[in-house]
Amino acid sequence: MNLRIPGPTPLPPDVLAAVGKQMINHRGPEFEAMFKDITGWLKVFFETSNDLFVLTSSGTGGMEAAVVNTLSPGDRVLCVPIGVFGERFAAIAEAYGAAVTRMPYPMGKAAVPAEVAAKIEAEGPFKAVIFTQNETSTGVTNDVEGLCRAIREAQTPAPLIIVDGISGLGAIRLQTDAWGVDVLVAGSQKAWMAPPGLAFISFSARAWEAYATAKMPRYYFDLGLARRYAERNQTPATPNVSALYGLHVSLQQMVAEGVEAVAARHQRIGDYCRAGCLELGLNLFAQPGYYSNTVTAATLQPGLSAKKVLEDLRTRYDIICGSTKAPGVEMLRVGHMGYVSEADLDEVFAALAKLLA
Amino acid sequence: MNLRIPGPTPLPPDVLAAVGKQMINHRGPEFEAMFKDITGWLKVFFETSNDLFVLTSSGTGGMEAAVVNTLSPGDRVLCVPIGVFGERFAAIAEAYGAAVTRMPYPMGKAAVPAEVAAKIEAEGPFKAVIFTQNETSTGVTNDVEGLCRAIREAQTPAPLIIVDGISGLGAIRLQTDAWGVDVLVAGSQKAWMAPPGLAFISFSARAWEAYATAKMPRYYFDLGLARRYAERNQTPATPNVSALYGLHVSLQQMVAEGVEAVAARHQRIGDYCRAGCLELGLNLFAQPGYYSNTVTAATLQPGLSAKKVLEDLRTRYDIICGSTKAPGVEMLRVGHMGYVSEADLDEVFAALAKLLA
Repeated sequence: MNLRIPGPTPLPPDVLAAVGKQMINHRGPEFEAMFKDITGWLKVFFETSNDLFVLTSSGTGGMEAAVVNTLSPGDRVLCVPIGVFGERFAAIAEAYGAAVTRMPYPMGKAAVPAEVAAKIEAEGPFKAVIFTQNETSTGVTNDVEGLCRAIREAQTPAPLIIVDGISGLGAIRLQTDAWGVDVLVAGSQKAWMAPPGLAFISFSARAWEAYATAKMPRYYFDLGLARRYAERNQTPATPNVSALYGLHVSLQQMVAEGVEAVAARHQRIGDYCRAGCLELGLNLFAQPGYYSNTVTAATLQPGLSAKKVLEDLRTRYDIICGSTKAPGVEMLRVGHMGYVSEADLDEVFAALAKLLA
Repeated sequence: MNLRIPGPTPLPPDVLAAVGKQMINHRGPEFEAMFKDITGWLKVFFETSNDLFVLTSSGTGGMEAAVVNTLSPGDRVLCVPIGVFGERFAAIAEAYGAAVTRMPYPMGKAAVPAEVAAKIEAEGPFKAVIFTQNETSTGVTNDVEGLCRAIREAQTPAPLIIVDGISGLGAIRLQTDAWGVDVLVAGSQKAWMAPPGLAFISFSARAWEAYATAKMPRYYFDLGLARRYAERNQTPATPNVSALYGLHVSLQQMVAEGVEAVAARHQRIGDYCRAGCLELGLNLFAQPGYYSNTVTAATLQPGLSAKKVLEDLRTRYDIICGSTKAPGVEMLRVGHMGYVSEADLDEVFAALAKLLA
C-alpha cells in the first residue's frame, strides 16, 4: 500500500520493528532512559529549551492541554483559523468557556500578520492568540515568525501565543524560542514517523505563569502533574509504550540528520509534489508563497469527483490519498511528510495520469 | 524479562507481531472493519449491549470521560475509594467541580454494600456513585454486584453507577447490564493483552440521559462526538492504530475462549499465586473473600524492604514486580492477568525463596 494521507504516515522498517517490542515497566530504569532521550530529542526539533511533555493522546488532546493549562473561563482569546483544524482549536477553547473571537481566513489562504495585528489593536487585549502552523486540510503553511512578531508588537504585555504544529513540526521549521511561541503542540503520527497516540507540547515560562492562575478544569491533561512525574522521566498515567518505542528510533535518526537537513528534504519533496501535480494539469489549492511541505491539496478539473478518484486510486492502484471539502471545488490531498520518497509520489502521479486521462 | 507488574502486561507473540504492522488510513474500510470487530468483542467482555467507545488515552482518560460526560459542576457524587485508584477517580470528579462525598475504606478492605447503602440513605440523594471493581494498589476485588444492588435499593431514582474496571475487566467478570452499571471503564494494557494507550468505556441509556444535561466542559473526551464518528466505525481524532492492531488479535482469542473460561483461568492463576505467596511465608494483604484474580499484594516479613526485594528481583533475576505503600507495611505486588502462566509465577517464587532465605 502507498499510504499518502497526511497522517498516520508510513513507518520505516526499523521503527516498525521497535513498535513491536515486548512491554516493559513504565516506572523502571529502561523506560526512564528512553523517555529522557525522547523528550530531549523533541526539544531539538521544537527548537526550544522550554519544558516539553509527551502525552498519551491524539494531537487533539495536546490542543486541549494547551487550552486548559493556560486559560480560565471568560478569558478573551483570538483564534485565527485558516481551515478545519484551526476551527477545531477554537471549538476546544469555547468548550472550556473561553470568550473566543474568531478571525477566520478563507480555505486556502494564510493568515496575514498585519491584519492579525490590526485586529488585536482594534479589539484587544487578548489573553492568548491561537493559530495553526500548517493547516492539514488545505496544505497551507502560515508565516509563524511574522505572525508572532506582529502579535507581540500589537499588544503589551504580549498575549500568550499558542500554535498547533501537528502536521508541520518535524518537517517545517518552527523556532519556538527565537520566535516566542509559548505553547506548541505536535503529534507522533505526522512527520515524526511514529504511530499515532502521542501528543507533544512545549510550555514556556510565560505559559507556566498563566498556568498558576488558569482556572479551566483539568486532570488527565494537567501539565503540573506531568511536570512532577517528568522529574523522574515518567508520566502520571500509563503511557503509550509501543508508540514511544517507535519514536525513540525515528527521533534518533532525525536528530542525526539535523533540523535543517530534515526541513530541506521536506522542501524538496514538497516542490516535487507540487511540480508533479501541475504537470498533471491539477491546480494547487493553497495560496502561492504558503505551500505546505508536508501536504499538498490539488484541485481537480471541473466535473471530476474527488470521491471517485480516491476510490479508484485505492481499489485499482492500492494508493491511499485524502480529500478536502471546499465550496465548489473538488480536491485531493497528498501527504508527503516523514518516510516518503520521490518514487512514492511518482507512483501516485502515474496512477493519476491514467485515471484523469 | 518476566514482567509481573499489574500492567502494562506482557503481550503474546502474535499480538506483538500485529502491533508492529504498517500504518493504514484511519478513515478507510480496513480500519473501519477492525474497529467494528473490536467494539463488538469488547461488549462481550463488558457483558453489555450499551454503547461502547474506544478512546486514545490511558485508562485515566477513560475515568475523566466517565465524569465529564455525565455530571455538572456542583453535582453531588459519592466516591467509595478502597485505594489509590479509587482516590484518583474522586480527584478527577473534584477537579471538574463535582461536590464529592468521600467514603474511604482502609487499604486492603473491600467496600461493604450495606454501609454504602446506609451512607446514601443518610446523606443522599447523590447524582452518581463511583467505585472501583478491582483496586490495583492493594489486590482487592469489590463485590460489584452487591454494591450495585445496595445502591439501587438505597435511592430512587437510583444514582448513576460509575465503575473503574481498569485492572479487573477481561479477567474478572462484571455483568454490566445484569447488575446495572451505567458507565464502566477499562484499559488496554491490563487483562486485554494489548499495549497501553486505549481506554474503553461503556455508556448506558441512563448515562446518555445524564449526558443531555451534563455541563462539565469536554472536547477530546466528548462521547457525543465519539458516538457520531462511531456510526461509521471511526473516531473523532487519529486513534492509537498500533494498539488497536494488537487488541484485534488478543480480543479475537479471548472471545473464542469465552468470558466464563477466561474468568475461570484467572481464578486458577489467582489461587496459584496466593498459594505460592503463603508457602513462602508471605501474608496476603487483601481482606479474605475479596482477593483479586489479577494482582496479589503480599506483605513482607517485618524488617524486609520491598524496595530492596524489588531491586534484587530485577537485577539478579530479571523479574519485575510492583510494590505498594501502606502505613507500617512493606508489600510486593505480583500481576497475574492476561498472558501469564503458572511457570511465570514459579520463577517469581523460586527467586523470592532465595532472596527471602
